Amino acid sequence: MIAVIGGSGAQGCGLAMRWALAGEDVIIGSRWSEKAEKAAAEMSKQAGRKIRGMNNLEATRAADVVVLSIPFEAMKEIVKEIAPTLTAGKILLSVIVPIRFKEGRISVEPPKTGSAAEELARLAPSGVKLVSAFQTVGAAHLQNLKEPIECDIVVCGDDAGAKRVVMGLAEKIHGVRSIDGGPLCNSRLVEPVVALLVELTRRRKVPGVSIRFEGLD
Amino acid sequence: MIAVIGGSGAQGCGLAMRWALAGEDVIIGSRWSEKAEKAAAEMSKQAGRKIRGMNNLEATRAADVVVLSIPFEAMKEIVKEIAPTLTAGKILLSVIVPIRFKEGRISVEPPKTGSAAEELARLAPSGVKLVSAFQTVGAAHLQNLKEPIECDIVVCGDDAGAKRVVMGLAEKIHGVRSIDGGPLCNSRLVEPVVALLVELTRRRKVPGVSIRFEGLD
Repeated sequence: MIAVIGGSGAQGCGLAMRWALAGEDVIIGSRWSEKAEKAAAEMSKQAGRKIRGMNNLEATRAADVVVLSIPFEAMKEIVKEIAPTLTAGKILLSVIVPIRFKEGRISVEPPKTGSAAEELARLAPSGVKLVSAFQTVGAAHLQNLKEPIECDIVVCGDDAGAKRVVMGLAEKIHGVRSIDGGPLCNSRLVEPVVALLVELTRRRKVPGVSIRFEGLD
Repeated sequence: MIAVIGGSGAQGCGLAMRWALAGEDVIIGSRWSEKAEKAAAEMSKQAGRKIRGMNNLEATRAADVVVLSIPFEAMKEIVKEIAPTLTAGKILLSVIVPIRFKEGRISVEPPKTGSAAEELARLAPSGVKLVSAFQTVGAAHLQNLKEPIECDIVVCGDDAGAKRVVMGLAEKIHGVRSIDGGPLCNSRLVEPVVALLVELTRRRKVPGVSIRFEGLD
C-alpha cells in the first residue's frame, strides 16, 4: 500500500495515478480528509482505478511506502503531523527538492545536512527507511497518462531492501528506467539537476523536460 | 581557429581531437611550448589531422575561440597568463567545473559569483565573450574517436553570436546535440550536474556517463 502525502499537488497526483494505473493500491493523503477524498475521486476517474483519500495521519498508518511530495518548506511540519503513524520499518520516499524562485531565477538551496532527503532523514522517526527518487520527473509528464514517460529515475537510499522496493515502483511506470544512485547522501547530487530541468522547461515552453543517462552499461 | 588551453589534459585533448576530426583548425595550448608540441604531435596522429602546439599565450593570440579546459583552481593564474593576448571580441569558452573530492565524496562547490563560468567572466579582460559548455561530456567518450558521443550539451552565454558559434562547434562533434541554456549565469544550473555524472560513472564502473534531455520539443 502506497500513501502519497501531498497527493493533491501536481506531482503527487501524477505519481499516484501512475501507480494506480500499474495496479498498485494507492491512498492520497492531505491535511483534510474531505480534500483528499475529493481529489482521490477525481483521480480514480482519470486512472480508471480506485484511489482512496485520507488525512495524512491515516494515510501514513495504512501504507508501507509513504511518499512525501510536498514543498521543502512544509517538510518539518508534515513530518511532525505524520510522526505518530510513521512507524519503524516503513519506507519514507522523498520527492522533495529545496528549490527557490528569486527575482525570476531558479536555484536549489540545500539545507546544512546537504539535501532535502538528508534533512528528512534527520527529522523522521528512527527506524524509518529513507529513500529519495522521482525529483527529476515533471508533473505534466506524470499526469499525461496516455503517454509513457521516457526518463531515468535515480534512486538513493541506505537500506538496500527499501531501495529495491522503490526501484521496482519506478519501473512500474511505463517508460521509466530506475538507476541505483547509491546512498541517501547522493540525493545532494540529484536534487540540483531539477533546477536545470525546470529552467529548460521554461525556456523551451514545453510541458516538461526529463533526463536520460547515456553510457551506464 | 580554436585554441584549447589545457589541451594536454584528458578532456581538452578529447575536444581538440574531435574538432580536428571535424575539419576545424585546432591549437593545443600548454604552459610550455615543448609540452604542447609533443602532445599535439601525438594527437595529430590519432585524429589523422594536423593539430598544432603552442604555449598558452601564443595559442590564445592565434585563436578566435579560446577554450579553457583546466581545473577550477588553476583558472585565476591561467587567465592572468593569457590576458595580454585575450583581446576584446574573442570567444572564451569555459569547460570548467568547481569540483572537489573530499573523503572519497564528490561535490561541486561554486564560487561566490555562482559558477566557474561567472567567476571566469569576472576575471577575464573586458570585451571578451564568455560562453560555457561541454562540462557534462566525459574525457573517455571524447577520446574514443571511433564512436559518436550520444549526448546533449547545454550552452550558456550572454552574447547571442558567440553562443551560436559554440553551438555550431558542439554539433560538429558526431552525435552531439547542442541546447541553448540561456544566459551565462545559467551555467550554475549546469555545472552541478557533473558531480552526478562522475558519481554514476564511478558506481557503474564505465568509461563515462553523459546526459540526454527528453521533452525539449
